[in-house]
Amino acid sequence: MSNSPIVKISANDPKRKSWIKVNSYSDFPIQNIPFGVFITKHDVITIGTRIGKTCIDLAALHQLGYFEGVPLTEDIFMQDNLNDFIDDGRKTWRAVRNRIAEIFDENNPILRDNEKHREEILFDEKDIEMLMPISVNDYTDFYSSKEHATNVGSIFRDPENPLLPNYLHIPIGYHGRSSSIVISGTGIRRPAGQRKTNGKKEITFGPTKSMDFELEMAFITTGANKLGNTIPIGETDQYIFGMVLLNDWSARDIQAWEYAPLGPFLGKSFATSISPWIVTMDALQPFRVDGPEQDPKPLPYLRQTGKNNYDINLSASIKPKGKQEAVVCETNLKHMYWSVYQQLAHQASNGCNICTADIYGSGTISGPEKGSFGSMLEITWNGKEPIKMKDGTDRKFLKNGDTVILRGYCKNDKIRLGFGECRGIIKKTKEGI
Amino acid sequence: MSNSPIVKISANDPKRKSWIKVNSYSDFPIQNIPFGVFITKHDVITIGTRIGKTCIDLAALHQLGYFEGVPLTEDIFMQDNLNDFIDDGRKTWRAVRNRIAEIFDENNPILRDNEKHREEILFDEKDIEMLMPISVNDYTDFYSSKEHATNVGSIFRDPENPLLPNYLHIPIGYHGRSSSIVISGTGIRRPAGQRKTNGKKEITFGPTKSMDFELEMAFITTGANKLGNTIPIGETDQYIFGMVLLNDWSARDIQAWEYAPLGPFLGKSFATSISPWIVTMDALQPFRVDGPEQDPKPLPYLRQTGKNNYDINLSASIKPKGKQEAVVCETNLKHMYWSVYQQLAHQASNGCNICTADIYGSGTISGPEKGSFGSMLEITWNGKEPIKMKDGTDRKFLKNGDTVILRGYCKNDKIRLGFGECRGIIKKTKEGI
Repeated sequence: MSNSPIVKISANDPKRKSWIKVNSYSDFPIQNIPFGVFITKHDVITIGTRIGKTCIDLAALHQLGYFEGVPLTEDIFMQDNLNDFIDDGRKTWRAVRNRIAEIFDENNPILRDNEKHREEILFDEKDIEMLMPISVNDYTDFYSSKEHATNVGSIFRDPENPLLPNYLHIPIGYHGRSSSIVISGTGIRRPAGQRKTNGKKEITFGPTKSMDFELEMAFITTGANKLGNTIPIGETDQYIFGMVLLNDWSARDIQAWEYAPLGPFLGKSFATSISPWIVTMDALQPFRVDGPEQDPKPLPYLRQTGKNNYDINLSASIKPKGKQEAVVCETNLKHMYWSVYQQLAHQASNGCNICTADIYGSGTISGPEKGSFGSMLEITWNGKEPIKMKDGTDRKFLKNGDTVILRGYCKNDKIRLGFGECRGIIKKTKEGI
Repeated sequence: MSNSPIVKISANDPKRKSWIKVNSYSDFPIQNIPFGVFITKHDVITIGTRIGKTCIDLAALHQLGYFEGVPLTEDIFMQDNLNDFIDDGRKTWRAVRNRIAEIFDENNPILRDNEKHREEILFDEKDIEMLMPISVNDYTDFYSSKEHATNVGSIFRDPENPLLPNYLHIPIGYHGRSSSIVISGTGIRRPAGQRKTNGKKEITFGPTKSMDFELEMAFITTGANKLGNTIPIGETDQYIFGMVLLNDWSARDIQAWEYAPLGPFLGKSFATSISPWIVTMDALQPFRVDGPEQDPKPLPYLRQTGKNNYDINLSASIKPKGKQEAVVCETNLKHMYWSVYQQLAHQASNGCNICTADIYGSGTISGPEKGSFGSMLEITWNGKEPIKMKDGTDRKFLKNGDTVILRGYCKNDKIRLGFGECRGIIKKTKEGI
């Protein structure tokens, strides 16, 4: 029971080159073809894709007839979010991605040699502004890095028994707040909240003193099952559209005081950032790898064979205001204990209905060694081991003016493709709070 | 700092009678005027209200000119949910409710004496079908009954110290799954899931053995603050549209195994039922009462004066298939430790944006004595003290074929108004799971 036979997808052909110039270190070769939403310099909102530094207005491309023969509604790309397109399902995504690959193939003159059309369709990345790619339905955040769960358990509970007894049996997760999911580049207000200072009796309300990031990735679904039905793990791959980088901003003091017994709440719900371009699962196919061995063997509804993890290099940097950025974490999605397919099968295993434009976060992605931990909580071991910025200042947690930048890319001997950046600057708490 | 000065709202005049006949025990006198969505016998979906057993098509009423002078868009009631209407804000809700009260006043002949219009506008409740009143945005479930938290803490943790240290300082809550919120009458599939039988090592997957209900109420908001801003507690009442009954169906064995450390997840997300008519906060004004004394005094952002709880009589019944129902709980919303205003101020205190058609559940509403506990977990003390149905059968938890019926009403010496019912029948787990 392989989750998904590796289909020959022509858009993934590593030999194909585009007539749009692409640097060798770009995240957006013609083999990527991610989907996003942007506003052009003419103030028009459109669904688009990107090759190199060139953003492509798909609504204009469609209107000018380039999708002839692909069954699409007239206004499918004239939208301010990708929900309808994602809702159309995998057959549509693939047909569109394949056609885009053909249109921009270096040997295809149809648009390459039509200057008037190129002017209507193509925009330099500097001349557009990215918008939220989807109108988010439900948001779940998993906790699927065993290394992260081990670190957190060691810091807050028992270094001898850091993992709770359920961890190796069940993909732990919780429901998150969807209204506060924002696009990369949105400023992040330091939240205020209740916290109890360790060793002190007093409970106070004010700006968090332990502002943190969490380096995560997330997958986005199309509508799958009706309420009351489940999704066999072998069919889950049909319902995952693509992935983004996700920063699950966290206020550790607020979280520590509020979380028992019902889990994270206001320590998380003030903001979650995602990268603007959704990279399709089809584009990520060449980077499927084995996950870690699972012992004990998962229950049948979570059992999978084949390569179900993804080899995606990830990093987090902190850039103090006006200063150079410092990389504080380098890790990889391949470390995840529970795969995206196990996460989705688990989410639906009680009959919960999976909808179009749901977001499912991975949880913090920590690797096995220091340097690969995906949050300040782990990097500084809850503030006990501050780290140095390039300007010589220390960080236990984030300061106002700090920008956190997440990056992710895949690379093999033939191609490299990636996610761009997910960034957010910490702004001071609003006056009067 | 009173949360909301008790405004003279003419639609609440207890002396007013309608030309539509209303029984003295009806939940829907002319002083209620709740809002909902229904499909008529002509297969038309409309926003509506209800007086007695008569459902009123507000789109037809509007089209026939009865809202002249009230600033409303033409299609405001020609919708399959109340989101746009709720988004319009309190001024609109009040103007519409006041106008409806006038139109149906027994002394107003305008519609009363127009048989043709009455035929177009009025439907017997038997001839319509209620639909989900809103397209739900985010769903939070609080945990605001101190008695419920005490019972749960006694059952699962420490009867000597049942309340966690944060409980009296902070309105505990968690994010819930919004996709699986369904309208009263929807069948509820018994979910399958992982559970660990107490005392046994084995972990199995299968239909829950401890299917439970939770008697709750919920409030529904209009868009309030931008992300990063907060809502002063004295202004929260402007943003609450109304309330419904809510059944937070729970699978206790699944919940017990999964909930550490991130809180309730699949033990809850398979279904949540709400009653179809949203009763406005304006209609509930006459039933505001003092809440329990709060000691310790809440932090300033949660401090309120005046009557901030609501005197709403609540009950839960179980009706085995084809048998008589038995009331298993009688309680009251007035017992809640944290008010709806404190809940909303808390939710926004970290800058989380409150949106139109968010649902905020109260948490299980248990009263101080046995007989007033709002879940089977508490009523049977986790199955140790089974209860008898009227047909002589025992219940530790719910059986397939059982219907749970929640009811709620307010009553003073002048009027009675209520919420109707929130019901759901337990259906067996789908074959093959």
